[in-house]
Amino acid sequence: MTHPAQHPLDAATALQVLRTEGATQHSSGSTHPAWQNMVGPFGGITAAQMLQAVLQHPQRLGEPVAFTVNYCAAVANGGFELSAQPLRTNRSTQHWWVQLSQEGQVVMTATAVTATRREAYSTQELAMPQVPSAADTPQLASSRTRPGWTRCYDWRVLQGDLPSVWEGAEQPSSLSRLWIRDEPPRPLDFLSLTALCDSFFPRIYVRRATPVPIGTVSFTVYFHADSAQLASVGSAHVLAQAQGQQFRNGFFDQTGALFAPTGELIASTHQVVYYK
Amino acid sequence: MTHPAQHPLDAATALQVLRTEGATQHSSGSTHPAWQNMVGPFGGITAAQMLQAVLQHPQRLGEPVAFTVNYCAAVANGGFELSAQPLRTNRSTQHWWVQLSQEGQVVMTATAVTATRREAYSTQELAMPQVPSAADTPQLASSRTRPGWTRCYDWRVLQGDLPSVWEGAEQPSSLSRLWIRDEPPRPLDFLSLTALCDSFFPRIYVRRATPVPIGTVSFTVYFHADSAQLASVGSAHVLAQAQGQQFRNGFFDQTGALFAPTGELIASTHQVVYYK
Repeated sequence: MTHPAQHPLDAATALQVLRTEGATQHSSGSTHPAWQNMVGPFGGITAAQMLQAVLQHPQRLGEPVAFTVNYCAAVANGGFELSAQPLRTNRSTQHWWVQLSQEGQVVMTATAVTATRREAYSTQELAMPQVPSAADTPQLASSRTRPGWTRCYDWRVLQGDLPSVWEGAEQPSSLSRLWIRDEPPRPLDFLSLTALCDSFFPRIYVRRATPVPIGTVSFTVYFHADSAQLASVGSAHVLAQAQGQQFRNGFFDQTGALFAPTGELIASTHQVVYYK
Repeated sequence: MTHPAQHPLDAATALQVLRTEGATQHSSGSTHPAWQNMVGPFGGITAAQMLQAVLQHPQRLGEPVAFTVNYCAAVANGGFELSAQPLRTNRSTQHWWVQLSQEGQVVMTATAVTATRREAYSTQELAMPQVPSAADTPQLASSRTRPGWTRCYDWRVLQGDLPSVWEGAEQPSSLSRLWIRDEPPRPLDFLSLTALCDSFFPRIYVRRATPVPIGTVSFTVYFHADSAQLASVGSAHVLAQAQGQQFRNGFFDQTGALFAPTGELIASTHQVVYYK
Protein backbone atom coordinates (compact mmCIF):
# COMPACT_ATOMS: atom_id res chain seq x y z
CA MET A 1 0.00 0.00 0.00
CA THR A 2 1.96 3.02 -1.17
CA HIS A 3 0.78 6.59 -0.93
CA PRO A 4 2.03 9.54 -2.97
CA ALA A 5 4.15 10.99 -0.14
CA GLN A 6 5.97 7.74 0.59
CA HIS A 7 9.63 7.65 -0.39
CA PRO A 8 10.39 5.03 -3.08
CA LEU A 9 12.88 3.35 -0.75
CA ASP A 10 10.27 3.06 2.01
CA ALA A 11 7.66 1.91 -0.48
CA ALA A 12 10.00 -0.79 -1.81
CA THR A 13 11.02 -2.05 1.64
CA ALA A 14 7.50 -2.22 3.10
CA LEU A 15 6.91 -5.90 3.91
CA GLN A 16 3.73 -7.63 5.10
CA VAL A 17 4.13 -10.24 7.82
CA LEU A 18 2.45 -13.44 6.67
CA ARG A 19 3.02 -15.89 9.50
CA THR A 20 5.50 -17.05 12.10
CA GLU A 21 6.69 -20.67 12.31
CA GLY A 22 8.92 -21.25 15.31
CA ALA A 23 11.50 -18.47 15.15
CA THR A 24 11.03 -18.00 11.39
CA GLN A 25 9.03 -14.99 10.29
CA HIS A 26 7.57 -15.16 6.80
CA SER A 27 6.67 -11.95 5.02
CA SER A 28 5.78 -10.85 1.54
CA GLY A 29 7.00 -7.96 -0.54
CA SER A 30 7.13 -6.88 -4.11
CA THR A 31 9.53 -5.36 -6.59
CA HIS A 32 8.91 -1.64 -7.10
CA PRO A 33 8.82 0.09 -10.49
CA ALA A 34 11.00 3.00 -9.32
CA TRP A 35 13.91 0.57 -8.80
CA GLN A 36 13.84 -1.15 -12.17
CA ASN A 37 17.21 -2.28 -13.57
CA MET A 38 18.03 -3.55 -17.07
CA VAL A 39 16.34 -6.86 -16.22
CA GLY A 40 14.34 -7.07 -12.98
CA PRO A 41 15.01 -4.89 -9.94
CA PHE A 42 18.26 -3.16 -8.88
CA GLY A 43 20.15 -5.63 -6.67
CA GLY A 44 20.74 -3.06 -3.95
CA ILE A 45 17.04 -2.58 -3.30
CA THR A 46 16.47 -6.34 -3.13
CA ALA A 47 19.31 -6.59 -0.63
CA ALA A 48 17.66 -3.83 1.42
CA GLN A 49 14.36 -5.74 1.30
CA MET A 50 16.15 -8.81 2.69
CA LEU A 51 17.75 -6.78 5.46
CA GLN A 52 14.34 -5.34 6.28
CA ALA A 53 13.14 -8.88 7.01
CA VAL A 54 15.82 -9.01 9.75
CA LEU A 55 15.18 -5.49 11.04
CA GLN A 56 11.44 -6.17 11.39
CA HIS A 57 11.86 -9.52 13.13
CA PRO A 58 10.51 -9.31 16.70
CA GLN A 59 13.44 -11.33 18.10
CA ARG A 60 16.16 -9.12 16.64
CA LEU A 61 19.06 -8.28 18.95
CA GLY A 62 21.03 -5.12 18.21
CA GLU A 63 21.88 -3.65 14.83
CA PRO A 64 23.49 -4.98 11.65
CA VAL A 65 27.26 -5.51 11.64
CA ALA A 66 27.72 -7.88 8.68
CA PHE A 67 25.39 -8.77 5.83
CA THR A 68 26.06 -11.09 2.90
CA VAL A 69 23.59 -11.55 0.06
CA ASN A 70 23.83 -14.26 -2.58
CA TYR A 71 22.05 -13.67 -5.86
CA CYS A 72 21.04 -17.18 -6.85
CA ALA A 73 18.85 -16.32 -9.82
CA ALA A 74 17.24 -13.32 -11.49
CA VAL A 75 14.45 -11.74 -9.42
CA ALA A 76 11.31 -11.52 -11.55
CA ASN A 77 9.24 -8.35 -11.34
CA GLY A 78 6.30 -8.88 -8.99
CA GLY A 79 5.76 -10.42 -5.58
CA PHE A 80 8.12 -12.49 -3.48
CA GLU A 81 8.19 -14.21 -0.12
CA LEU A 82 10.86 -13.67 2.52
CA SER A 83 11.74 -15.83 5.49
CA ALA A 84 14.03 -14.60 8.27
CA GLN A 85 15.28 -16.75 11.10
CA PRO A 86 17.76 -16.16 13.94
CA LEU A 87 19.93 -19.28 13.96
CA ARG A 88 21.95 -18.42 17.01
CA THR A 89 21.50 -15.74 19.64
CA ASN A 90 24.36 -14.94 21.99
CA ARG A 91 24.62 -12.32 24.71
CA SER A 92 25.54 -9.51 22.33
CA THR A 93 25.53 -11.02 18.82
CA GLN A 94 22.93 -12.79 16.72
CA HIS A 95 23.25 -14.77 13.48
CA TRP A 96 20.54 -14.71 10.81
CA TRP A 97 19.43 -16.68 7.79
CA VAL A 98 17.18 -15.06 5.18
CA GLN A 99 15.72 -16.50 2.00
CA LEU A 100 13.82 -14.80 -0.79
CA SER A 101 11.71 -17.03 -2.97
CA GLN A 102 9.40 -16.70 -5.93
CA GLU A 103 7.02 -19.43 -6.98
CA GLY A 104 8.55 -21.78 -4.42
CA GLN A 105 12.11 -21.43 -5.78
CA VAL A 106 15.01 -19.90 -3.83
CA VAL A 107 16.05 -16.73 -5.65
CA MET A 108 18.29 -15.09 -3.07
CA THR A 109 19.83 -16.04 0.25
CA ALA A 110 21.45 -13.90 2.93
CA THR A 111 23.24 -14.18 6.23
CA ALA A 112 23.39 -11.33 8.70
CA VAL A 113 25.11 -10.66 11.99
CA THR A 114 23.46 -8.20 14.32
CA ALA A 115 25.02 -7.02 17.56
CA THR A 116 24.69 -4.61 20.42
CA ARG A 117 27.72 -2.37 20.27
CA ARG A 118 29.53 -1.15 23.35
CA GLU A 119 31.88 1.79 23.53
CA ALA A 120 35.42 0.59 22.99
CA TYR A 121 38.76 1.73 21.62
CA SER A 122 38.06 3.12 18.15
CA THR A 123 40.30 4.31 15.36
CA GLN A 124 39.87 4.69 11.64
CA GLU A 125 42.63 3.49 9.36
CA LEU A 126 41.19 4.03 5.88
CA ALA A 127 41.01 7.81 5.53
CA MET A 128 38.45 9.50 3.34
CA PRO A 129 40.21 10.65 0.18
CA GLN A 130 40.68 14.39 -0.16
CA VAL A 131 38.14 15.43 -2.73
CA PRO A 132 35.97 18.49 -3.47
CA SER A 133 32.78 18.64 -1.41
CA ALA A 134 29.48 17.40 -2.81
CA ALA A 135 28.35 21.02 -3.19
CA ASP A 136 31.40 21.70 -5.34
CA THR A 137 30.92 18.61 -7.53
CA PRO A 138 28.61 18.86 -10.55
CA GLN A 139 25.43 16.84 -10.38
CA LEU A 140 25.14 14.16 -13.06
CA ALA A 141 22.27 14.95 -15.40
CA SER A 142 19.44 12.45 -15.15
CA SER A 143 19.91 10.05 -18.03
CA ARG A 144 17.21 8.18 -19.91
CA THR A 145 19.85 5.83 -21.29
CA ARG A 146 20.67 4.55 -17.79
CA PRO A 147 18.34 2.15 -15.97
CA GLY A 148 15.41 3.58 -14.00
CA TRP A 149 16.86 2.93 -10.53
CA THR A 150 19.69 5.39 -11.22
CA ARG A 151 17.06 8.16 -10.98
CA CYS A 152 16.52 7.17 -7.32
CA TYR A 153 19.92 8.76 -6.59
CA ASP A 154 21.64 12.12 -6.89
CA TRP A 155 25.04 11.35 -8.46
CA ARG A 156 28.09 13.60 -8.30
CA VAL A 157 30.93 11.70 -9.90
CA LEU A 158 34.50 12.72 -9.14
CA GLN A 159 36.25 9.91 -10.98
CA GLY A 160 35.42 6.70 -12.83
CA ASP A 161 31.98 7.38 -14.30
CA LEU A 162 30.55 5.05 -16.90
CA PRO A 163 32.33 5.61 -20.20
CA SER A 164 30.71 8.21 -22.45
CA VAL A 165 31.91 6.28 -25.48
CA TRP A 166 31.63 2.48 -25.36
CA GLU A 167 34.55 1.94 -27.66
CA GLY A 168 36.38 -0.71 -25.68
CA ALA A 169 39.36 1.51 -24.81
CA GLU A 170 40.65 -0.26 -21.72
CA GLN A 171 41.32 2.01 -18.75
CA PRO A 172 44.24 1.44 -16.37
CA SER A 173 41.98 1.73 -13.32
CA SER A 174 38.41 0.88 -12.45
CA LEU A 175 38.43 3.17 -9.41
CA SER A 176 35.27 5.25 -9.02
CA ARG A 177 34.74 8.03 -6.51
CA LEU A 178 31.47 9.86 -6.20
CA TRP A 179 29.13 11.69 -3.89
CA ILE A 180 25.71 10.07 -3.79
CA ARG A 181 22.45 10.37 -1.87
CA ASP A 182 18.88 9.20 -2.20
CA GLU A 183 16.71 11.20 -4.59
CA PRO A 184 14.41 12.55 -3.25
CA PRO A 185 16.55 13.12 -0.13
CA ARG A 186 15.91 10.70 2.76
CA PRO A 187 17.69 10.35 6.12
CA LEU A 188 20.34 7.62 5.96
CA ASP A 189 19.60 4.30 7.68
CA PHE A 190 20.69 0.68 7.36
CA LEU A 191 18.29 0.06 4.48
CA SER A 192 19.43 2.95 2.33
CA LEU A 193 23.09 2.35 3.19
CA THR A 194 22.75 -1.27 2.05
CA ALA A 195 21.30 -0.20 -1.29
CA LEU A 196 24.00 2.47 -1.68
CA CYS A 197 26.68 -0.19 -1.19
CA ASP A 198 25.45 -1.90 -4.36
CA SER A 199 25.03 1.30 -6.37
CA PHE A 200 28.43 1.18 -8.06
CA PHE A 201 28.34 0.52 -11.77
CA PRO A 202 29.98 -2.75 -12.73
CA ARG A 203 33.74 -2.27 -12.49
CA ILE A 204 34.22 -4.07 -15.78
CA TYR A 205 32.29 -1.32 -17.59
CA VAL A 206 34.57 1.35 -16.12
CA ARG A 207 37.69 -0.70 -16.81
CA ARG A 208 36.90 -2.10 -20.21
CA ALA A 209 34.36 0.31 -21.69
CA THR A 210 32.67 -2.63 -23.37
CA PRO A 211 29.09 -3.68 -22.58
CA VAL A 212 28.80 -7.33 -21.53
CA PRO A 213 26.11 -9.17 -19.54
CA ILE A 214 26.94 -9.05 -15.82
CA GLY A 215 25.32 -10.08 -12.55
CA THR A 216 26.43 -9.88 -8.93
CA VAL A 217 26.65 -13.34 -7.39
CA SER A 218 27.65 -12.45 -3.81
CA PHE A 219 27.62 -9.09 -2.01
CA THR A 220 28.81 -8.22 1.48
CA VAL A 221 28.39 -5.12 3.63
CA TYR A 222 30.20 -4.46 6.90
CA PHE A 223 28.44 -1.71 8.82
CA HIS A 224 30.75 0.49 10.89
CA ALA A 225 28.11 2.84 12.25
CA ASP A 226 25.10 2.49 14.51
CA SER A 227 21.69 3.94 13.73
CA ALA A 228 22.39 7.17 15.65
CA GLN A 229 25.53 7.81 13.58
CA LEU A 230 23.65 7.08 10.36
CA ALA A 231 20.87 9.43 11.44
CA SER A 232 23.44 12.14 12.03
CA VAL A 233 24.42 11.94 8.34
CA GLY A 234 20.81 12.78 7.56
CA SER A 235 20.16 13.25 3.87
CA ALA A 236 23.65 14.52 3.07
CA HIS A 237 25.65 12.93 0.27
CA VAL A 238 28.04 10.14 1.23
CA LEU A 239 31.39 9.66 -0.48
CA ALA A 240 31.47 6.27 -2.18
CA GLN A 241 34.47 4.60 -3.75
CA ALA A 242 34.93 1.22 -5.37
CA GLN A 243 37.60 -0.58 -7.32
CA GLY A 244 37.96 -3.93 -9.02
CA GLN A 245 40.95 -6.06 -8.06
CA GLN A 246 40.86 -9.10 -10.30
CA PHE A 247 38.89 -9.81 -13.48
CA ARG A 248 39.39 -13.43 -14.44
CA ASN A 249 37.54 -15.88 -16.66
CA GLY A 250 34.02 -14.68 -15.98
CA PHE A 251 34.18 -13.24 -12.46
CA PHE A 252 35.56 -10.01 -11.06
CA ASP A 253 35.62 -8.69 -7.52
CA GLN A 254 35.01 -5.18 -6.24
CA THR A 255 36.03 -3.62 -2.96
CA GLY A 256 34.36 -0.44 -1.78
CA ALA A 257 33.99 2.06 1.03
CA LEU A 258 31.37 4.63 2.01
CA PHE A 259 32.21 7.69 4.08
CA ALA A 260 30.05 10.20 5.91
CA PRO A 261 30.76 13.73 4.65
CA THR A 262 32.55 14.36 7.96
CA GLY A 263 35.06 11.62 7.03
CA GLU A 264 33.95 8.58 9.06
CA LEU A 265 34.08 5.24 7.22
CA ILE A 266 30.50 4.07 7.77
CA ALA A 267 30.53 0.92 5.62
CA SER A 268 32.96 -1.25 3.71
CA THR A 269 31.52 -3.43 0.97
CA HIS A 270 32.72 -6.17 -1.32
CA GLN A 271 31.21 -8.20 -4.11
CA VAL A 272 31.99 -10.73 -6.78
CA VAL A 273 30.29 -10.37 -10.12
CA TYR A 274 29.74 -12.70 -13.04
CA TYR A 275 30.49 -11.34 -16.50
CA LYS A 276 30.37 -12.83 -19.96
CA MET B 1 41.46 -42.28 10.68
CA THR B 2 44.77 -40.49 10.39
CA HIS B 3 48.05 -42.18 9.58
CA PRO B 4 51.53 -40.83 10.25
CA ALA B 5 52.15 -39.70 6.68
CA GLN B 6 48.91 -37.74 6.37
CA HIS B 7 49.31 -33.96 6.24
CA PRO B 8 47.63 -32.16 9.18
CA LEU B 9 45.47 -30.20 6.75
CA ASP B 10 44.26 -33.39 5.08
CA ALA B 11 43.76 -35.06 8.44
CA ALA B 12 41.70 -32.11 9.70
CA THR B 13 39.52 -31.90 6.57
CA ALA B 14 38.75 -35.62 6.32
CA LEU B 15 34.97 -35.91 6.73
CA GLN B 16 32.82 -39.04 7.06
CA VAL B 17 29.55 -39.03 5.16
CA LEU B 18 26.73 -39.93 7.57
CA ARG B 19 23.60 -39.81 5.45
CA THR B 20 21.82 -37.97 2.65
CA GLU B 21 18.38 -36.43 3.07
CA GLY B 22 17.05 -35.02 -0.19
CA ALA B 23 19.90 -32.88 -1.53
CA THR B 24 21.43 -32.37 1.92
CA GLN B 25 24.52 -34.39 2.71
CA HIS B 26 25.32 -34.82 6.39
CA SER B 27 28.86 -35.63 7.43
CA SER B 28 30.89 -35.69 10.58
CA GLY B 29 34.31 -34.34 11.35
CA SER B 30 36.42 -33.39 14.29
CA THR B 31 38.73 -30.66 15.44
CA HIS B 32 42.38 -31.60 15.08
CA PRO B 33 45.03 -31.00 17.77
CA ALA B 34 47.58 -29.62 15.27
CA TRP B 35 45.25 -26.68 14.58
CA GLN B 36 44.59 -25.60 18.15
CA ASN B 37 44.12 -21.87 18.75
CA MET B 38 43.99 -19.97 22.06
CA VAL B 39 40.49 -21.37 22.66
CA GLY B 40 39.23 -24.13 20.35
CA PRO B 41 40.45 -24.59 16.77
CA PHE B 42 41.94 -22.00 14.38
CA GLY B 43 39.01 -20.45 12.46
CA GLY B 44 40.69 -20.98 9.11
CA ILE B 45 40.76 -24.75 9.46
CA THR B 46 37.09 -24.84 10.48
CA ALA B 47 36.26 -22.76 7.42
CA ALA B 48 38.21 -25.27 5.29
CA GLN B 49 36.25 -28.12 6.88
CA MET B 50 33.00 -26.38 5.91
CA LEU B 51 34.21 -25.86 2.35
CA GLN B 52 35.17 -29.54 2.23
CA ALA B 53 31.51 -30.40 2.84
CA VAL B 54 30.71 -28.57 -0.41
CA LEU B 55 33.65 -29.99 -2.35
CA GLN B 56 32.70 -33.57 -1.38
CA HIS B 57 29.01 -33.18 -2.20
CA PRO B 58 28.09 -35.47 -5.12
CA GLN B 59 25.90 -32.77 -6.72
CA ARG B 60 28.58 -30.07 -6.79
CA LEU B 61 28.85 -28.05 -9.99
CA GLY B 62 32.17 -26.38 -10.74
CA GLU B 63 34.63 -24.86 -8.30
CA PRO B 64 34.38 -22.29 -5.50
CA VAL B 65 34.06 -18.63 -6.48
CA ALA B 66 32.71 -17.07 -3.27
CA PHE B 67 32.58 -18.42 0.28
CA THR B 68 31.28 -16.67 3.39
CA VAL B 69 31.55 -18.21 6.84
CA ASN B 70 29.77 -16.91 9.92
CA TYR B 71 31.21 -17.81 13.31
CA CYS B 72 28.09 -18.02 15.46
CA ALA B 73 29.69 -19.43 18.60
CA ALA B 74 32.97 -20.92 19.79
CA VAL B 75 33.73 -24.35 18.29
CA ALA B 76 34.40 -26.81 21.12
CA ASN B 77 37.25 -29.26 20.70
CA GLY B 78 35.90 -32.62 19.57
CA GLY B 79 33.42 -33.86 16.99
CA PHE B 80 30.92 -31.89 14.92
CA GLU B 81 28.30 -32.50 12.28
CA LEU B 82 28.17 -30.74 8.94
CA SER B 83 25.27 -30.41 6.52
CA ALA B 84 25.74 -29.13 2.98
CA GLN B 85 22.90 -28.41 0.59
CA PRO B 86 22.75 -26.91 -2.90
CA LEU B 87 19.88 -24.41 -2.73
CA ARG B 88 19.90 -23.40 -6.36
CA THR B 89 21.65 -24.91 -9.34
CA ASN B 90 21.86 -22.92 -12.56
CA ARG B 91 23.56 -23.74 -15.84
CA SER B 92 27.00 -22.61 -14.71
CA THR B 93 26.61 -21.47 -11.06
CA GLN B 94 25.40 -23.16 -7.90
CA HIS B 95 24.49 -21.71 -4.48
CA TRP B 96 25.22 -23.58 -1.26
CA TRP B 97 24.15 -23.56 2.38
CA VAL B 98 26.36 -25.22 4.99
CA GLN B 99 25.86 -25.58 8.72
CA LEU B 100 28.22 -26.87 11.39
CA SER B 101 26.62 -27.99 14.62
CA GLN B 102 27.70 -29.46 17.92
CA GLU B 103 25.29 -31.08 20.34
CA GLY B 104 22.36 -30.00 18.17
CA GLN B 105 23.29 -26.29 18.27
CA VAL B 106 24.30 -24.25 15.20
CA VAL B 107 27.92 -23.19 15.72
CA MET B 108 28.84 -21.96 12.23
CA THR B 109 27.03 -21.25 8.98
CA ALA B 110 28.34 -20.70 5.48
CA THR B 111 27.20 -19.86 1.99
CA ALA B 112 29.19 -20.76 -1.07
CA VAL B 113 28.94 -20.09 -4.76
CA THR B 114 30.52 -22.62 -7.09
CA ALA B 115 30.76 -22.14 -10.83
CA THR B 116 32.18 -23.56 -13.99
CA ARG B 117 34.52 -20.94 -15.36
CA ARG B 118 34.88 -20.20 -19.03
CA GLU B 119 37.75 -18.39 -20.68
CA ALA B 120 36.93 -14.71 -20.92
CA TYR B 121 38.59 -11.30 -20.96
CA SER B 122 40.91 -11.23 -17.96
CA THR B 123 42.98 -8.50 -16.39
CA GLN B 124 44.42 -7.95 -12.94
CA GLU B 125 44.09 -4.53 -11.35
CA LEU B 126 45.57 -5.07 -7.89
CA ALA B 127 49.27 -5.65 -8.53
CA MET B 128 51.40 -7.72 -6.22
CA PRO B 129 53.53 -5.34 -4.15
CA GLN B 130 57.22 -5.30 -4.98
CA VAL B 131 58.84 -7.20 -2.16
CA PRO B 132 61.87 -9.45 -1.67
CA SER B 133 61.26 -13.08 -2.64
CA ALA B 134 60.33 -15.68 -0.05
CA ALA B 135 63.82 -17.15 -0.33
CA ASP B 136 65.25 -13.74 0.55
CA THR B 137 62.95 -13.20 3.53
CA PRO B 138 63.95 -14.62 6.91
CA GLN B 139 61.82 -17.44 8.24
CA LEU B 140 60.04 -16.63 11.50
CA ALA B 141 61.35 -18.85 14.27
CA SER B 142 58.75 -21.29 15.56
CA SER B 143 57.34 -19.75 18.72
CA ARG B 144 55.96 -21.57 21.73
CA THR B 145 54.27 -18.36 22.85
CA ARG B 146 52.06 -18.34 19.73
CA PRO B 147 49.10 -20.74 19.41
CA GLY B 148 49.74 -24.25 18.10
CA TRP B 149 48.17 -23.71 14.66
CA THR B 150 50.87 -21.17 13.80
CA ARG B 151 53.29 -24.11 13.60
CA CYS B 152 51.22 -25.44 10.67
CA TYR B 153 52.71 -22.62 8.57
CA ASP B 154 56.08 -21.35 7.44
CA TRP B 155 55.99 -17.57 8.07
CA ARG B 156 58.24 -15.01 6.41
CA VAL B 157 57.04 -11.63 7.55
CA LEU B 158 57.99 -8.56 5.52
CA GLN B 159 55.93 -6.01 7.45
CA GLY B 160 53.37 -5.88 10.27
CA ASP B 161 54.28 -8.86 12.43
CA LEU B 162 52.76 -9.21 15.87
CA PRO B 163 54.38 -6.70 18.23
CA SER B 164 57.45 -8.00 20.06
CA VAL B 165 56.56 -5.76 22.98
CA TRP B 166 52.91 -5.56 24.00
CA GLU B 167 53.22 -2.07 25.38
CA GLY B 168 50.20 -0.51 23.76
CA ALA B 169 52.19 1.77 21.46
CA GLU B 170 49.64 2.43 18.74
CA GLN B 171 50.95 1.96 15.20
CA PRO B 172 49.85 4.18 12.31
CA SER B 173 49.10 1.17 10.09
CA SER B 174 47.85 -2.37 10.58
CA LEU B 175 49.15 -3.47 7.17
CA SER B 176 50.85 -6.86 7.19
CA ARG B 177 52.72 -8.41 4.29
CA LEU B 178 54.22 -11.86 4.49
CA TRP B 179 55.17 -14.95 2.59
CA ILE B 180 53.42 -18.01 3.94
CA ARG B 181 52.96 -21.68 3.04
CA ASP B 182 51.78 -24.85 4.74
CA GLU B 183 54.28 -26.53 7.02
CA PRO B 184 55.05 -29.27 6.11
CA PRO B 185 54.77 -28.13 2.47
CA ARG B 186 51.59 -29.22 0.67
CA PRO B 187 50.35 -28.38 -2.85
CA LEU B 188 47.93 -25.44 -2.76
CA ASP B 189 44.22 -26.17 -3.23
CA PHE B 190 40.91 -24.56 -2.28
CA LEU B 191 41.05 -26.00 1.24
CA SER B 192 44.49 -24.71 2.10
CA LEU B 193 43.86 -21.37 0.39
CA THR B 194 40.72 -20.90 2.51
CA ALA B 195 42.65 -21.53 5.71
CA LEU B 196 45.45 -19.22 4.56
CA CYS B 197 42.91 -16.43 4.01
CA ASP B 198 42.15 -16.52 7.76
CA SER B 199 45.78 -16.82 8.86
CA PHE B 200 46.33 -13.09 9.44
CA PHE B 201 46.80 -12.11 13.04
CA PRO B 202 44.04 -9.83 14.33
CA ARG B 203 44.63 -6.37 12.86
CA ILE B 204 43.91 -4.79 16.21
CA TYR B 205 46.97 -6.51 17.71
CA VAL B 206 49.20 -5.09 14.97
CA ARG B 207 47.60 -1.66 15.23
CA ARG B 208 47.25 -1.30 18.96
CA ALA B 209 49.87 -3.67 20.43
CA THR B 210 47.47 -4.44 23.26
CA PRO B 211 46.04 -7.92 23.85
CA VAL B 212 42.24 -7.98 23.96
CA PRO B 213 39.76 -10.83 23.44
CA ILE B 214 38.79 -11.06 19.75
CA GLY B 215 36.76 -13.35 17.51
CA THR B 216 35.95 -13.30 13.80
CA VAL B 217 32.19 -13.04 13.25
CA SER B 218 32.03 -13.16 9.44
CA PHE B 219 34.70 -14.13 6.89
CA THR B 220 34.56 -14.05 3.10
CA VAL B 221 36.86 -15.44 0.42
CA TYR B 222 36.61 -14.68 -3.29
CA PHE B 223 38.57 -17.24 -5.28
CA HIS B 224 40.17 -15.89 -8.43
CA ALA B 225 41.89 -19.09 -9.53
CA ASP B 226 40.74 -22.51 -10.61
CA SER B 227 42.19 -25.76 -9.28
CA ALA B 228 44.72 -26.01 -12.12
CA GLN B 229 46.10 -22.56 -11.32
CA LEU B 230 46.29 -23.38 -7.64
CA ALA B 231 48.05 -26.65 -8.41
CA SER B 232 50.60 -24.72 -10.45
CA VAL B 233 51.54 -22.77 -7.30
CA GLY B 234 52.42 -26.11 -5.76
CA SER B 235 53.90 -25.80 -2.31
CA ALA B 236 55.53 -22.43 -2.94
CA HIS B 237 54.93 -19.55 -0.53
CA VAL B 238 52.11 -17.16 -1.37
CA LEU B 239 52.32 -13.45 -0.67
CA ALA B 240 49.60 -12.47 1.77
CA GLN B 241 48.63 -8.96 2.77
CA ALA B 242 45.90 -7.64 5.03
CA GLN B 243 44.90 -4.32 6.52
CA GLY B 244 42.22 -3.06 8.87
CA GLN B 245 40.05 -0.19 7.67
CA GLN B 246 37.81 0.75 10.58
CA PHE B 247 37.97 -0.19 14.27
CA ARG B 248 34.83 1.03 15.98
CA ASN B 249 33.07 0.17 19.22
CA GLY B 250 33.83 -3.52 19.32
CA PHE B 251 34.16 -4.50 15.65
CA PHE B 252 36.90 -4.01 13.08
CA ASP B 253 37.12 -5.07 9.48
CA GLN B 254 40.05 -6.46 7.53
CA THR B 255 40.63 -6.59 3.80
CA GLY B 256 43.24 -8.93 2.37
CA ALA B 257 44.75 -10.36 -0.78
CA LEU B 258 46.79 -13.47 -1.59
CA PHE B 259 49.14 -13.63 -4.55
CA ALA B 260 50.88 -16.51 -6.27
CA PRO B 261 54.66 -15.97 -6.27
CA THR B 262 54.37 -15.23 -9.99
CA GLY B 263 52.16 -12.24 -9.16
CA GLU B 264 48.60 -13.43 -9.87
CA LEU B 265 45.98 -12.36 -7.34
CA ILE B 266 44.50 -15.77 -6.47
CA ALA B 267 42.14 -14.73 -3.66
CA SER B 268 40.76 -11.61 -2.04
CA THR B 269 39.43 -11.97 1.47
CA HIS B 270 37.53 -9.85 3.97
CA GLN B 271 36.36 -10.27 7.52
CA VAL B 272 34.77 -8.46 10.41
CA VAL B 273 36.03 -9.23 13.89
CA TYR B 274 34.64 -8.64 17.36
CA TYR B 275 36.99 -7.18 19.95
CA LYS B 276 36.59 -6.16 23.55
